Amino acid sequence: MPAANSLDTQDINVREMEEYRPLLHRPLRKKIIDFERDGRLKHVILATQFTRPLLEELCDLADMVRELASDPEGRRKLSKLLSHLQAMMYFTQPSTRTFLSFSAVCRLLGIGTEQVRDSAVSSESSEGVKRESRFDSIRMFSSYFDLIIMRSSIPDLAECCAYLMNELENQEFNTRNIPIINAGSGADQHPTQALLDLYTIRRTFRFADEKRTPRPQFEVLSDAYPNLTADVSNKTFAFCGDLGRGRTVRSLVELLMKFDNVSMVFISPDHPKFQLSDDLISRLRDQGVSFEEVDSLDARLDGIPVLHQIDCLYMTRIQQEHNNQEDNDFFASADMTHYHLTPERVDQMRSYAPILHPFPRDSVAGEIPTAIDGNPRAMYFHQARNGLWARAALLVHIFNADRALTQAYREHYADLHDFNRAVL
Amino acid sequence: MPAANSLDTQDINVREMEEYRPLLHRPLRKKIIDFERDGRLKHVILATQFTRPLLEELCDLADMVRELASDPEGRRKLSKLLSHLQAMMYFTQPSTRTFLSFSAVCRLLGIGTEQVRDSAVSSESSEGVKRESRFDSIRMFSSYFDLIIMRSSIPDLAECCAYLMNELENQEFNTRNIPIINAGSGADQHPTQALLDLYTIRRTFRFADEKRTPRPQFEVLSDAYPNLTADVSNKTFAFCGDLGRGRTVRSLVELLMKFDNVSMVFISPDHPKFQLSDDLISRLRDQGVSFEEVDSLDARLDGIPVLHQIDCLYMTRIQQEHNNQEDNDFFASADMTHYHLTPERVDQMRSYAPILHPFPRDSVAGEIPTAIDGNPRAMYFHQARNGLWARAALLVHIFNADRALTQAYREHYADLHDFNRAVL
Amino acid sequence: MPAANSLDTQDINVREMEEYRPLLHRPLRKKIIDFERDGRLKHVILATQFTRPLLEELCDLADMVRELASDPEGRRKLSKLLSHLQAMMYFTQPSTRTFLSFSAVCRLLGIGTEQVRDSAVSSESSEGVKRESRFDSIRMFSSYFDLIIMRSSIPDLAECCAYLMNELENQEFNTRNIPIINAGSGADQHPTQALLDLYTIRRTFRFADEKRTPRPQFEVLSDAYPNLTADVSNKTFAFCGDLGRGRTVRSLVELLMKFDNVSMVFISPDHPKFQLSDDLISRLRDQGVSFEEVDSLDARLDGIPVLHQIDCLYMTRIQQEHNNQEDNDFFASADMTHYHLTPERVDQMRSYAPILHPFPRDSVAGEIPTAIDGNPRAMYFHQARNGLWARAALLVHIFNADRALTQAYREHYADLHDFNRAVL
Repeated sequence: MPAANSLDTQDINVREMEEYRPLLHRPLRKKIIDFERDGRLKHVILATQFTRPLLEELCDLADMVRELASDPEGRRKLSKLLSHLQAMMYFTQPSTRTFLSFSAVCRLLGIGTEQVRDSAVSSESSEGVKRESRFDSIRMFSSYFDLIIMRSSIPDLAECCAYLMNELENQEFNTRNIPIINAGSGADQHPTQALLDLYTIRRTFRFADEKRTPRPQFEVLSDAYPNLTADVSNKTFAFCGDLGRGRTVRSLVELLMKFDNVSMVFISPDHPKFQLSDDLISRLRDQGVSFEEVDSLDARLDGIPVLHQIDCLYMTRIQQEHNNQEDNDFFASADMTHYHLTPERVDQMRSYAPILHPFPRDSVAGEIPTAIDGNPRAMYFHQARNGLWARAALLVHIFNADRALTQAYREHYADLHDFNRAVL
Repeated sequence: MPAANSLDTQDINVREMEEYRPLLHRPLRKKIIDFERDGRLKHVILATQFTRPLLEELCDLADMVRELASDPEGRRKLSKLLSHLQAMMYFTQPSTRTFLSFSAVCRLLGIGTEQVRDSAVSSESSEGVKRESRFDSIRMFSSYFDLIIMRSSIPDLAECCAYLMNELENQEFNTRNIPIINAGSGADQHPTQALLDLYTIRRTFRFADEKRTPRPQFEVLSDAYPNLTADVSNKTFAFCGDLGRGRTVRSLVELLMKFDNVSMVFISPDHPKFQLSDDLISRLRDQGVSFEEVDSLDARLDGIPVLHQIDCLYMTRIQQEHNNQEDNDFFASADMTHYHLTPERVDQMRSYAPILHPFPRDSVAGEIPTAIDGNPRAMYFHQARNGLWARAALLVHIFNADRALTQAYREHYADLHDFNRAVL
Repeated sequence: MPAANSLDTQDINVREMEEYRPLLHRPLRKKIIDFERDGRLKHVILATQFTRPLLEELCDLADMVRELASDPEGRRKLSKLLSHLQAMMYFTQPSTRTFLSFSAVCRLLGIGTEQVRDSAVSSESSEGVKRESRFDSIRMFSSYFDLIIMRSSIPDLAECCAYLMNELENQEFNTRNIPIINAGSGADQHPTQALLDLYTIRRTFRFADEKRTPRPQFEVLSDAYPNLTADVSNKTFAFCGDLGRGRTVRSLVELLMKFDNVSMVFISPDHPKFQLSDDLISRLRDQGVSFEEVDSLDARLDGIPVLHQIDCLYMTRIQQEHNNQEDNDFFASADMTHYHLTPERVDQMRSYAPILHPFPRDSVAGEIPTAIDGNPRAMYFHQARNGLWARAALLVHIFNADRALTQAYREHYADLHDFNRAVL
């Protein structure tokens, strides 16, 4: 066995993924079909799987989850929706936020969870010698669990796992196989983050906040901004920071493209690595989406400050952990304050324009100082919490529990109504 | 950004806590109000928050939890009390015992849990570069969870987190904020350990053990000890070992001070570092609590061995992990057997006097040899189990479920009664 | 205390286990009684505790669990069976597979779980100084939990923990004590793996697969193999690979010995370390079990290839992590392909003969290449899933819930029947 012994597990895993190369290189529209069953998502791999009608549907489900979650009895109803399921959270790339969000979502819906996060406790790598292949690990998870939520630094791994599951499904006797959810893969995809971002944008752009004004919010805003519409369409979205290396921007841009009359402004250092990648630029051009690229939050377009013109500002962190020496030199010479919010800059923005950030923010660089946290435009903490409702809606959809959710929602409000009537 | 980049996250976190300095330096009675809402604890930070009436109330709730937990049907009732909640266990200081206790308590009450224990898996520190501030992490937890149970080696961190939550509560639109429970903070506070210690003492001093004698235990004991009373008051408590560095002793002394006619004996090496700290000594003096300091378990007071006179002996471990070289030299020259129990020493104690220990005990030093474990005075394993009931009672109180617990308890015993009647 | 201080915790733990030496050295039949209560297993330590009637009973329970688990309503019924319990999973030896299996089983039955896997986060070893004894840790677990599932590289540790629990039970006032389940101990015992292996073998040898043929499977097979019987008895089992160092083979051989007219073939390198150990060989001789030892999958017995003659092939991985330099030299000179399956070798096997493997398999050495995974004889993924039902059955038995399971099963099928009738 000298030949085999000279191969290490890494090689095995590379060879395994190699088998799926032809599937990976297909056009998006062909892939998408592979991740659906009966007009419903089975695997969630790419942001572009979310069609606009599906986005509307998921946001409506998310609203129901959100309302039910607001009282103990509603929570009990939610916790029965998927209580027959168990999820494996396979997070080999460090992550607290996405991990905790999905974990909380599973508990909310009654889904039992287990985790494999650090391969050091796994026989996959223990003592470096058990040498189990990654796909054997995935098949093991599919023996014990009903769902894999995975995050990996290996590009395309989640997608390959979905193909592995499809292969099992197509074997002679329909071998056990389960849905794969991509919770962040390589540098390019983070579909559920895009979903929760979009859900937050959609909620904000309803302009139905009742707490802040006695008059309906949209009416008040329409006086000041006569062209405003109460939806995601017809808006200008700005993205600021490390646009080339952040997968959340890529995934959200994909979703916003699906809405009508949307414009975008990309604010980043003038360096190819930090600007939106060429493939996305091409897609925007192909879809006829109008966009601009500028190099400062203080930039002007047509003589008017960008900050006056935008309906939404999506901030990001500079991903310094991916810097090489050249990048460090670039940052040392660049004035990065062009990409940092300040209270003065926020004051220039439209009163209703939400500030989003996928978090964590960099407390040293300070792209959003805490002084802004109390500003009514700051939506980044709401955004995190909206992640619970949006991700819960997605699981409800995948496991065909949307009707059960709708029924639970109706019963709940019927109960409350009866209760209110009885009290009156 | 050279200035900002030269700061590291540690500096950010120190600066963040600095903002709460004025609040930290207030007198205790002013602080306590900040941790209450509507006559109920919201945050549990300091042992002194437990007033004597609250202690009685919590002990009564703990008794109900304990009895319900003793059979499967009662456990099912308990598991519904707080099943709409999710708790974050944020334990950045290593701990097995307190962690497992709280984790078991949450499951007992139906509370879902997630944990962040090792900051290595968190984006807070991953690759050393994401640089999220600690308070952003706490706010993230408050987005996903309904409660934070935290243990940290950083003094005052739990208290500062409570102030952060209060700030959010006071923002214009009542931003989401959740209770903070201090499960051990710095060197000075461990309030829930004190609560479970007190619960154990109170149960023992009812002298209502029915297993051991045919006659009521208190009657039997009164023959031998005519002045004995069946409560926490009127007792002498001895504390032995590393009294200066153990936060459990500090916290328990705080609670016992609230009872009437309580005396204390502190048995420790004659060295300022291992003796009760000056601030606590002052407080005992101010409250008129009588106490003595001696340097051996064999010491005599008024010519009578201390061990003959005490009603309760609280043993502790020497916290060698905090030794410096000077301490090591001190221990090498000192005769530490003065602070170790032996079967002969136990035999000198009153028959009813419980031996407590917060555990873990040091199996090498042997402050309590296993030979004593079978002695009826040894209460340290009961003490651990009582922690479940006392901590559960605390959560029930915080989340306003005391009425629901009482009702579950009554129903349970009504059911049992019906059942017994039906059988007869 | 210089003498005591020179001892480290390891010494303490060795001394603690030393106390149980006389119990460890008793004959098996004497030990087994210690692990039972009222004709029911309390502790599960050794494979030989499973008598043949008990194996039949557990397999029947496992079948019920399996069927109930196949639909959401059945799963809800299962999740109430043991929902009053909490389990500690104490896995100090790295393991993913067994850990995830037991964890999934606990959730399936509603048992809450907590884990201690890496002693680095425990006060047992934190900073190397708290120096809690292992048995104090075990007693702590027994304060908080209702069951300990443990895996350790220390030989006999699980057995000693069972003796500790028995000691507590025998103390004057029946001190709290809980069942111990051995999930892999030292090099010699893995009883629950053997149980799931046997359950898989028993299911396969019913020859009742309905998916694959229109005629009853056993009828079809009987045409080709007239002497075939539909049970575990009267079969020839082959074991291939690292037979000396794998505890799963040892444990399964123990169970198969209990069936009638069973033969075995052991296929391993001709080296004492990799061959079945002498003690097991003696036991096989004593029990009159016929067996052969050969050194290749291509070996012949009575002129006929072994692969033609066997009813079941149990493959194992070479445990390279336990190699010393001499072993490495041995492997470098040996032709290990004699112990690797190939599609050609599989084709020589009887059509019904299952291929088992305890997994993980070695993806570098390749004792089972993935090309075989689609072969109908490949049962190793089913085997993993069967582990859920077999281990669940074991917990149901230990906690006396077999009657509740049977009732849930009957109700479930009565409901389905009513449902079907109502629909028709």
